[in-house]
Amino acid sequence: MIGARGGVASVVAAGLVALQKKLTEHTGLTSSLSEFKDIGLVDWDSIVLGGHEIRSTSLLDEVRLFQQSSRAFDWQLIDQIEKELSEIDARIRPGVLANAGQAITALAPPEIANDSRTAREKIRQLQGDLRHFIDSNQLQRAVVINLSSTETQVDSSSIPHSWEELDKNLDQVNCALPASSLYAIAALELGIGFVNFTPSLGCGCPAIEEMALARKAVHMGRDGKTGETLIKSVLAPAFAIRNLQIMSWVGHNIFGNMDGQILDDPANKKTKVASKDQMLGQILGYTPQSHISIEYIRSLGDWKTAWDHIHFKGFLGTPMVMQFTWQGCDSILAAPLVLDLFRFAERAQRAGEIGNLEWLACFFKSPAGTTENNL
Amino acid sequence: MIGARGGVASVVAAGLVALQKKLTEHTGLTSSLSEFKDIGLVDWDSIVLGGHEIRSTSLLDEVRLFQQSSRAFDWQLIDQIEKELSEIDARIRPGVLANAGQAITALAPPEIANDSRTAREKIRQLQGDLRHFIDSNQLQRAVVINLSSTETQVDSSSIPHSWEELDKNLDQVNCALPASSLYAIAALELGIGFVNFTPSLGCGCPAIEEMALARKAVHMGRDGKTGETLIKSVLAPAFAIRNLQIMSWVGHNIFGNMDGQILDDPANKKTKVASKDQMLGQILGYTPQSHISIEYIRSLGDWKTAWDHIHFKGFLGTPMVMQFTWQGCDSILAAPLVLDLFRFAERAQRAGEIGNLEWLACFFKSPAGTTENNL
Amino acid sequence: MIGARGGVASVVAAGLVALQKKLTEHTGLTSSLSEFKDIGLVDWDSIVLGGHEIRSTSLLDEVRLFQQSSRAFDWQLIDQIEKELSEIDARIRPGVLANAGQAITALAPPEIANDSRTAREKIRQLQGDLRHFIDSNQLQRAVVINLSSTETQVDSSSIPHSWEELDKNLDQVNCALPASSLYAIAALELGIGFVNFTPSLGCGCPAIEEMALARKAVHMGRDGKTGETLIKSVLAPAFAIRNLQIMSWVGHNIFGNMDGQILDDPANKKTKVASKDQMLGQILGYTPQSHISIEYIRSLGDWKTAWDHIHFKGFLGTPMVMQFTWQGCDSILAAPLVLDLFRFAERAQRAGEIGNLEWLACFFKSPAGTTENNL
Amino acid sequence: MIGARGGVASVVAAGLVALQKKLTEHTGLTSSLSEFKDIGLVDWDSIVLGGHEIRSTSLLDEVRLFQQSSRAFDWQLIDQIEKELSEIDARIRPGVLANAGQAITALAPPEIANDSRTAREKIRQLQGDLRHFIDSNQLQRAVVINLSSTETQVDSSSIPHSWEELDKNLDQVNCALPASSLYAIAALELGIGFVNFTPSLGCGCPAIEEMALARKAVHMGRDGKTGETLIKSVLAPAFAIRNLQIMSWVGHNIFGNMDGQILDDPANKKTKVASKDQMLGQILGYTPQSHISIEYIRSLGDWKTAWDHIHFKGFLGTPMVMQFTWQGCDSILAAPLVLDLFRFAERAQRAGEIGNLEWLACFFKSPAGTTENNL
Repeated sequence: MIGARGGVASVVAAGLVALQKKLTEHTGLTSSLSEFKDIGLVDWDSIVLGGHEIRSTSLLDEVRLFQQSSRAFDWQLIDQIEKELSEIDARIRPGVLANAGQAITALAPPEIANDSRTAREKIRQLQGDLRHFIDSNQLQRAVVINLSSTETQVDSSSIPHSWEELDKNLDQVNCALPASSLYAIAALELGIGFVNFTPSLGCGCPAIEEMALARKAVHMGRDGKTGETLIKSVLAPAFAIRNLQIMSWVGHNIFGNMDGQILDDPANKKTKVASKDQMLGQILGYTPQSHISIEYIRSLGDWKTAWDHIHFKGFLGTPMVMQFTWQGCDSILAAPLVLDLFRFAERAQRAGEIGNLEWLACFFKSPAGTTENNL
Repeated sequence: MIGARGGVASVVAAGLVALQKKLTEHTGLTSSLSEFKDIGLVDWDSIVLGGHEIRSTSLLDEVRLFQQSSRAFDWQLIDQIEKELSEIDARIRPGVLANAGQAITALAPPEIANDSRTAREKIRQLQGDLRHFIDSNQLQRAVVINLSSTETQVDSSSIPHSWEELDKNLDQVNCALPASSLYAIAALELGIGFVNFTPSLGCGCPAIEEMALARKAVHMGRDGKTGETLIKSVLAPAFAIRNLQIMSWVGHNIFGNMDGQILDDPANKKTKVASKDQMLGQILGYTPQSHISIEYIRSLGDWKTAWDHIHFKGFLGTPMVMQFTWQGCDSILAAPLVLDLFRFAERAQRAGEIGNLEWLACFFKSPAGTTENNL
Repeated sequence: MIGARGGVASVVAAGLVALQKKLTEHTGLTSSLSEFKDIGLVDWDSIVLGGHEIRSTSLLDEVRLFQQSSRAFDWQLIDQIEKELSEIDARIRPGVLANAGQAITALAPPEIANDSRTAREKIRQLQGDLRHFIDSNQLQRAVVINLSSTETQVDSSSIPHSWEELDKNLDQVNCALPASSLYAIAALELGIGFVNFTPSLGCGCPAIEEMALARKAVHMGRDGKTGETLIKSVLAPAFAIRNLQIMSWVGHNIFGNMDGQILDDPANKKTKVASKDQMLGQILGYTPQSHISIEYIRSLGDWKTAWDHIHFKGFLGTPMVMQFTWQGCDSILAAPLVLDLFRFAERAQRAGEIGNLEWLACFFKSPAGTTENNL
Repeated sequence: MIGARGGVASVVAAGLVALQKKLTEHTGLTSSLSEFKDIGLVDWDSIVLGGHEIRSTSLLDEVRLFQQSSRAFDWQLIDQIEKELSEIDARIRPGVLANAGQAITALAPPEIANDSRTAREKIRQLQGDLRHFIDSNQLQRAVVINLSSTETQVDSSSIPHSWEELDKNLDQVNCALPASSLYAIAALELGIGFVNFTPSLGCGCPAIEEMALARKAVHMGRDGKTGETLIKSVLAPAFAIRNLQIMSWVGHNIFGNMDGQILDDPANKKTKVASKDQMLGQILGYTPQSHISIEYIRSLGDWKTAWDHIHFKGFLGTPMVMQFTWQGCDSILAAPLVLDLFRFAERAQRAGEIGNLEWLACFFKSPAGTTENNL
């Protein structure tokens, strides 16, 4: 996990241990549906978590903090998984930064924030960590999942289109790749699967995809479809099926976790809004006026609240309205999808698949390699 | 159309004329989607409307009244379709009543309300009207669609299971069949298709289905899926796909049209609530606590407003909430579905299909012959 | 406190101890506003809690259960107040029942449920308990507050209008007074103040009011104004001030605590709905169509959720809509009002006031002695 | 009326004529409440409307356009008031512009947009128009009300504090006063009352207030309190009264009329948001995190829809939520307030009041001369 002590990763860790120790049910896990019972997904017990993190904190502290501020799950759970969380924490290494924007850089200690090494050097460090993680835990396979905060938007025209060129670029000081892409390269070069659960660039450029194919590695992204967008992706098709014309769709999101704090920086927010906003046109076949806003409201913590106002036209031109509000605990919604994606990506790797895993599209707001957004 | 001067029928009539005269767009019509362009659906110009109605009023008055109270479509439209509405009105005949409950019976003039003829005699009258309608308009095919107010719930155990027995029953004074079923028998016996757009019994019993097969007639029902239930039928699957457990689903519906007035009678409301309430279990595979209420609020007229509160459990047992409100003009939502159903049922008849048309399930709250409710 | 181990009383007890030990802030307490700083309200430290309860449980268990199901306050709080809760629990005595309806009676053990003593005998028992409570705790003054579940509606015409007659009635087997009124009589006869925080009858009849004046005791009721109704009582005046005409006001309440379970019995619900429904006419000066429903939805526990839909007419007859949803933890909203009412009623008694305390109207849905409902 | 053919002014004109011809009721008019029956407010029949407008259109066209897009009132009304609307239209003169920002300037024809005369010269033109209006209609008194679109925010430090200095400034080319202030000066210098119904500067600076006192003229502003803010001004006090602590208050406004189009320019929006945002602190006594957004959504036209999310803390620190949505036709809400303000301001002038009319505070989002915002 990249961002291995962040909100989502904390819940992934707590949740996996709870599943391993049978302290919780499978609610929220798509991969636990009966449809997938017989396809040989990896058992919870066989999964070992580790990761990279730029912040100096402990996983246990983060899990406690999350529980106290969100009151999402029972506090008693933490006492029962304390030991295992510390073991996972011991497998988390210092991460790297690059072109992530000021808001994210401010979270890191000086040695990471001011690290002036080339992209290549940082990749080498990550690859050393990955090899060590696999060897020391005697693993057969690994999947890297990016759970870190949204980076500022990258001008993708500044990134070479072929791997040959991009590869050279990695040694240059002005390499425009953000950290999420360095992690992607580190994993994929080693043949390790990479899943980008965030709107950051990650593996989402032709050169990296080219390299992944060459290394026979799987990858998929971007931006986990957890709440408001999940609902949009079933509502919009309903309007389309009934030939009801959407005139405008407004979505207003408020929340107060660290993700929200980072998105409060306009540069980072731009990346996120772009990811949320392209779905409607793809589902409807036309582009209604839409407006998406995301605001950081401290008091809400991890409870992302969204209000959507859908103004549509029916028979004889009659205007009507549907509104919905969504009050979801964001990390609690995201964490099981991360576990699902790990299991599906691992299974695909084991089956010999390579390249982009379009069939995981339903997990993402901006699924790579497809324009199908209907859930 | 049964209930041919009611709210839905009024909009069907106004809408069809507007389509024929190219005064409106195809918004709201599923059958106008590009997917159905090449399957040979009947043209708007080839459709002739007629029907039965128990109330003494005029179609033009009803259309004007509807427009004034709902302000749904532009008032100018009515001036342009006045002549054609009168022509349709001239093809509407007095309807029949039977076991419809007090609320509905109160709407009819004495000669209909107190009509003590047997079911058989009423059916003969309706069949005479249908034959006359087809002959005088030189039609090749007809479909009868029930748009009348919801009847009180019938104890279906009191209705014979075989056509042979039911047929005999039609001559008895205490025949328990409601008017909607008399209309169904009248049509199906003549080989004319029958669609039940309401929660009333209509063609929904084994004896009538048996007869329909023998007469090679098509039929389908019940209860058009127009608004809140349409949305439920896409939201519930989304929760299922993500393995999010619905703990409770509350739906509160308020509206003030004549349908609402009839449903204000507890006997009629029972039929409706039963129809709305069985869907969740069929989609989810388990039955969460659910509560559906329907209240008659005069001031709202045809604007049906629904509030749904969905309480669900996510990963690690975390409770979360989604709410939606729906503000739809009910007859405006229903009318295009009626036109769609007419076109699809006519096409099926033309293609030689017989019996229940399960593939029309997506148009109904309680689709006959299937438990598939996912839109 | 009557109902001294119920949801509201549990939070009153936990909250008072937390205030006494300075473990919490004064949020939610009207009596802690700066406006009341100098009027000599009793200190938290001088208050001693006790009460009556018909159920066999412990206060500590109820507080723990409440915290676990509602996650309202921090679980750590309970460890810090455990000892004091047990001390309060030791001062809670078995209560009495009378004409409370089946739903409430079912909660009591046989010796209370089947207690066939006369009203007079039950009152004597309660008065013995009250005297013992005051003496053993060396108290200067006491106030009894009814926090028990809503009783079924009493036909108030069956209750004598003069105290002389009612007094005689207490010795008869068929005395129609509900338990809440026996508690009221027990307290007021001793000159002890009585506050009815529920919609039950309590002190709300002329005969009891007459006796209270004679005994120089204070009283007030009924039905604490905690959530949805609080909001109505500020919104309705806003519409009146602007001469905007309310056409209909619909309120749909859902919740799942024991109060909700009792209200699920239609007989008890009737009492509650009547209490919530008379306010609009008194504020607006005319009576719009209104509909109030209360439904028991298990999964919500103490989190009362209300949806209100307000349909109003503006200038030139234009219809408009306001809607609100309220998600409040009911006992958490009620408990500080109980503490406020105790302090205000005690202060009034100390100042020599007698009879009905109309100036406490803002705390009640159906304030006794006034038709002023504007907050 | 300034902006005399805009949305609000159109409804003011249509509404006044409808009142004069008894074609509508008094709904929405505060001045028609029984409380004000005996204070001698001017009759509808005695009021003559006129105004200034920078756009080239006709009042009748604007009223028709408004009715068609909003379907607010019955279209039949317009036929009955056509003649009177044309008479009002004939009394509307070309307006002036100054420092209003690009969005507003773009609406005017070249001769107004590029008018390079000094502020003094423009004021002289307006005063000539006002004198002519009063004389030719044989009026005893006049009140000027600013209904024009929100101007960009003015740096008030750039405006001289004394009338002596500001007066000199009027002859200079770089005078920073916006048009709304030129109108204010024009009226007040003549002893005519001035009401600023918009967030623009208008009469809201010390120098102009000083002059108004000298000329014995009345004035008041700013920004009519029509919808979402009206509701906030009754809800916030309710939370304060109960000592419930607001943690955050988010308001998201969407609408699509010309006002919305102008506010879509960030420079103009800033003026508006500032006006909406200062109320909470003044009512609560502390400043919670608040966020107000206003977005232009074409399809909504004049139907301003707001979603407010109020996150508050109750007893024992328990977080709770109230949300509301407001669906109001903005010009329909504003127009009666304009008529009210005209009547109250005229009455005050007649009674010999001078200067700022603080007692009209309840009509304004940012009432001049007071910090009292509780409705």
